[in-house]
Amino acid sequence: MIVIDRERLAELRLLTLAAPAIRDAYIAVTDGRANLPPVGYLPLPGRNADCHIKYGYIEGDPIFVVKIASGFYDNPAKGLPSSTGMMVAVSSETGDVVAVLDDKGLLTDLRTGLGGAIATMALWRKDACSIGIVGAGTQARIQIRALASLSDRPLRFTVWGRSMEKANAVLTDLTDLDLSMEAATDLETLCRQSDAIVTTTPSKEPLIRSEWIGPGTHITAMGADAPGKQELETALVARADRLFVDLAEQCLDHGEFSAASRAVVIQEERCVALGAVLSGAAEGRRSDNDITIADLTGIATQDIAIARTVLYELGLLGRSQGTTA
Amino acid sequence: MIVIDRERLAELRLLTLAAPAIRDAYIAVTDGRANLPPVGYLPLPGRNADCHIKYGYIEGDPIFVVKIASGFYDNPAKGLPSSTGMMVAVSSETGDVVAVLDDKGLLTDLRTGLGGAIATMALWRKDACSIGIVGAGTQARIQIRALASLSDRPLRFTVWGRSMEKANAVLTDLTDLDLSMEAATDLETLCRQSDAIVTTTPSKEPLIRSEWIGPGTHITAMGADAPGKQELETALVARADRLFVDLAEQCLDHGEFSAASRAVVIQEERCVALGAVLSGAAEGRRSDNDITIADLTGIATQDIAIARTVLYELGLLGRSQGTTA
Repeated sequence: MIVIDRERLAELRLLTLAAPAIRDAYIAVTDGRANLPPVGYLPLPGRNADCHIKYGYIEGDPIFVVKIASGFYDNPAKGLPSSTGMMVAVSSETGDVVAVLDDKGLLTDLRTGLGGAIATMALWRKDACSIGIVGAGTQARIQIRALASLSDRPLRFTVWGRSMEKANAVLTDLTDLDLSMEAATDLETLCRQSDAIVTTTPSKEPLIRSEWIGPGTHITAMGADAPGKQELETALVARADRLFVDLAEQCLDHGEFSAASRAVVIQEERCVALGAVLSGAAEGRRSDNDITIADLTGIATQDIAIARTVLYELGLLGRSQGTTA
Repeated sequence: MIVIDRERLAELRLLTLAAPAIRDAYIAVTDGRANLPPVGYLPLPGRNADCHIKYGYIEGDPIFVVKIASGFYDNPAKGLPSSTGMMVAVSSETGDVVAVLDDKGLLTDLRTGLGGAIATMALWRKDACSIGIVGAGTQARIQIRALASLSDRPLRFTVWGRSMEKANAVLTDLTDLDLSMEAATDLETLCRQSDAIVTTTPSKEPLIRSEWIGPGTHITAMGADAPGKQELETALVARADRLFVDLAEQCLDHGEFSAASRAVVIQEERCVALGAVLSGAAEGRRSDNDITIADLTGIATQDIAIARTVLYELGLLGRSQGTTA
């Protein structure tokens, strides 16, 4: 059994390398190759902590993955990150553990960033160049890195944070990218001037009002999912021309679309699977005037996809073992 | 993150060291300290394989455990064991991974053996000395080792196998114990002469007939659990004076008691939790004439208990971190 630590994983160019596999991870869900049991949930009473256990299998894959993702909400007071995690990659041929990926949540951050960028680029207008990033945390940074890595358009980013200091810190951390970026604290202006918006906050109150969003805008809602999660005004979700999901049962239960679903202003039938758009089985954006919203909650096939990419890159899986890489 | 391999784990005297924690693991279920989400199940279509993911938390414990247990049923044809597994021990204080126990199923075998011995010794007659072991596999050996380790009675074992060769192999493997043991292939005689019987087979057809079992006999049914599992004639389960379970929902669903439950000859109300007997909250055996049967299907608290014991023994957890060890 090999253990690969976070530092080694951080050296790999996963935002480029893993993109084809992450794209396939969404398609696997819609073409019937993915086995995705319900996510396991273990609360730790008295600890202000919980743990999610995600696992799944893509038929024909050389590995399957079990991911342990913990949230310890008193950790920041101890100077520790509140979330951490690791993945176990198991051989689908023998059941042997191929590797423990001691990524402390890095691979989840990266696969989430790639998922967001893939959704945004599948659904934005052909001429979209002005990108609004809502939030100034880890995922804000990774969404920008992933879009910059995958897109060849001359993108202009505006980063909104609750303070200019936080928004500027994102710009500082990304100077290596040599991108057009500016910081903002006026969310309305950001929304009105953006062709595409990526939300990355832990908000449980709507931040973005419907009246701020013009025709043709695309929004990818990436913010932290949990019961009560909401970044967009319910009226905006109801008004959107097209709604996209990674997995409808998750999005409607505890994702961005859950508030609109509870308010009975949207139904599951309106939600189109991102995988179906990526495979060509369903339409994405239909016109330059469509308002499109993608709600991504994260699926185990993404974990498999990025773990598989790591193992191939490190020579721990023979190419002949895989069928979908 | 520390990885502890099977060889290192095999050096520890866990059949002695872990007994108090395994005992507490059953009590934790009945006194409300255990959080046991449903066991995760991941089938691997096209692979003749599956994976169970067991996890849980005992309130106040310094760790929780996620166990990955795989069954790859084509492995024997490749010269590999059909089942393997590993455990991840996570800090309940911070969410950090304390250790990966790369036990390849050893800890599950040991905690299962200890559970069986604890149940047998809690429920047999005060004068029970003649022990029948049904089956000649790994768990037959471990049940004998665990009983020999925990009991101070002069036990006499008879081991039944489908061939004398297999039964004798068990005796050969246990010569270090210096026990009174004999091999048998006549199951009826074994049953008629045993005060307590431990079944350890993968049978899906009843092996033990009701008429072979006299008053006062205790049976611990340990055999491989799965839909269709059955080692005891349904009439014997129906006729028993007292029925005991580790977790009723598992035993009645895919354990020894599932056949009798489906035949509607027993109801859940008849099943007494082993933990309640061990804590004194419920009666165990009521008379020397009772026929008692314990059906053990395995619970995540046992995994926590043995993992915690390992970590204490190896100095990876401070005693002050634990409250129940």
